[in-house]
Amino acid sequence: MNKTHDKIRMRKIYFTTGPTELNPEIKSFIAEAIENDICSINHRSVEFVDICKDTVKSLKALLNIPDNYHVFFLASATECMDKIITNCVETSSLHFVNGAFAERFYKIALELNKKAQNIEIPYGESFKFKKLKLKEAPELICITHNETSTGVTIDSNEIYKLKKGFPETLIAVDIVTSVPYYNLNFSKFDCAFFSVQKGFGLPPGLAILIVNDKCIEKVQYLKNNKINIGSYHNFISLYENSLKNQTTETPNTLGIFLLGKVCEYLINYNIELVRQETEVKSEMIYNFFEMSDLGTPFIRNVKDRSKTVIVIDLNEKQNEIIKLLEENGIIVSTGYRNYKNTQIRIANFPQHKTEDVKRMLEILSTVK
Amino acid sequence: MNKTHDKIRMRKIYFTTGPTELNPEIKSFIAEAIENDICSINHRSVEFVDICKDTVKSLKALLNIPDNYHVFFLASATECMDKIITNCVETSSLHFVNGAFAERFYKIALELNKKAQNIEIPYGESFKFKKLKLKEAPELICITHNETSTGVTIDSNEIYKLKKGFPETLIAVDIVTSVPYYNLNFSKFDCAFFSVQKGFGLPPGLAILIVNDKCIEKVQYLKNNKINIGSYHNFISLYENSLKNQTTETPNTLGIFLLGKVCEYLINYNIELVRQETEVKSEMIYNFFEMSDLGTPFIRNVKDRSKTVIVIDLNEKQNEIIKLLEENGIIVSTGYRNYKNTQIRIANFPQHKTEDVKRMLEILSTVK
Repeated sequence: MNKTHDKIRMRKIYFTTGPTELNPEIKSFIAEAIENDICSINHRSVEFVDICKDTVKSLKALLNIPDNYHVFFLASATECMDKIITNCVETSSLHFVNGAFAERFYKIALELNKKAQNIEIPYGESFKFKKLKLKEAPELICITHNETSTGVTIDSNEIYKLKKGFPETLIAVDIVTSVPYYNLNFSKFDCAFFSVQKGFGLPPGLAILIVNDKCIEKVQYLKNNKINIGSYHNFISLYENSLKNQTTETPNTLGIFLLGKVCEYLINYNIELVRQETEVKSEMIYNFFEMSDLGTPFIRNVKDRSKTVIVIDLNEKQNEIIKLLEENGIIVSTGYRNYKNTQIRIANFPQHKTEDVKRMLEILSTVK
Repeated sequence: MNKTHDKIRMRKIYFTTGPTELNPEIKSFIAEAIENDICSINHRSVEFVDICKDTVKSLKALLNIPDNYHVFFLASATECMDKIITNCVETSSLHFVNGAFAERFYKIALELNKKAQNIEIPYGESFKFKKLKLKEAPELICITHNETSTGVTIDSNEIYKLKKGFPETLIAVDIVTSVPYYNLNFSKFDCAFFSVQKGFGLPPGLAILIVNDKCIEKVQYLKNNKINIGSYHNFISLYENSLKNQTTETPNTLGIFLLGKVCEYLINYNIELVRQETEVKSEMIYNFFEMSDLGTPFIRNVKDRSKTVIVIDLNEKQNEIIKLLEENGIIVSTGYRNYKNTQIRIANFPQHKTEDVKRMLEILSTVK
């Protein structure tokens, strides 16, 4: 068999929830980075400051992040969770747990010796905060907007209500698989974070933490009161460096550069168009499984269904379906934890093409 | 003027101390990574486990790291310092400070509320530990083997003596710009760390922390005694994942892959040859400045001179020399702190070619 042909046939499409399919231009962006010595420049140089400035500017433009929010570069969403707890909590945090990643946030708070509380609902359900009553306002409320483990999304308007009910509380939102599709009003919460290997289609190893001045005031208060805010990546050091468009340590310069390029790419492509396409693709996938005997969407309540992480109950057919897709070069994620062998999770990010979604569904429609 | 010609003329060579010149094969290694979907694979997949295993194996072979030492992937040397203090110190650490990076290690310990002590010597001097007497053995001794800020190296045999003198103390060694040139006996200390954008010529954003079982026992002791060992990247989580050839979080997969490729490259090239070449290049540079009126090596004691970070006093000529080199496409680092405007620092890593060193010295020899 012809080798080239073999290679083309074997080209894989990753519908995994992240790491996932790369932005189609990543290869040329990396070539540009190497051509321009981006990986060799000093992180205190004018060249680096310019890259950092450009990336922050493009990201803020793309996601409509207010000017008075600060952008920090970390290594992973898990690191962001740790740093938020360490830098925004003296004693107590409250966690709304609707899946494995919300639970991780909660467990990190416990590991950091905070009095963390959790309000937990079963996998597959979502939260409404309108009638939320608490004995005491917590210092920090942590919410997972789009649960990558279950495919549940929380209506952003529900999140926005929290600030009204608890004006003194800091609100932290995990938006790991939310952006850039979900158009969020950042002024309605105090900090948020995502990693770049999801909806931005970058190589993994970089996470973005976005915080407002209220978080900076809180860490300053903790420091003044001799509460341990850590050393590496404490918010004071991150903040002071961000004001200079720099980082505390020698950072993942390539990742920062690539993120800026992908943001520009999405702005030029037209983010509204990206959002429309995401909705079309998501409808195609959900509709297929609504109509098919193959499986059913895990999330029963249509309004709670994530547009970017689509979870399907396949039960005993799961393994067969995963294999069939893989034979056709299509990779999806398995379910999480208890659902590892019965569900699949299909990512629907900007870099996932409509034609590839169609192809996936065509392949699935051949199953008897 | 011909555009291509223009581009060739403008190709820069980075003799900076890191980030610096990339390994000459990085571009093709990245292409290989993208071709093989390295940036899209899941970090719990067999594919990732294989990459992780290969990289650790090649790194251990290249640097002669004993089997019973564990390799952790972090984001930066600064993070390594923080994690070593957090996970290996209950109350006290002792820091031998002979430059800015040793000082950073010390200051991180203070920021983490440890009773850190420092023994400080002037920039440009080195340590001998033979006659070291201390009232009390500290829990942890921190040493910077090769000070990137001053170009001073500590004779590794001096470091090896510490274990004899303080058998119960953990010894942590900053080898950020030491490896792969310096052939260290890892069994003579308990942990060590470096970042990949120095002597391995990788893009920045990945650091390697190497620890033995004594460090793991220590963190276990701290945990059992309710001492805060942090959550993210605590040694227990890093260790447990490393046993499975995995990482706690979705890591910098590309960096881990590239490090493995560069280690293989250096093994195939022959690491002994790399070391000989490093010595030849280092002698060329030191000899040039010994003979020249242009400047003088900062480190007076020849034995204390680093082979990989060469610091030259240029005094009032510094700015002119940096500009001259830059006009010829050669980038060097400035001096550090007080020496920012009077010194240059020249990196001499495996990826720095003899012919480029010659060219740099030829250009410098034209200065009257």
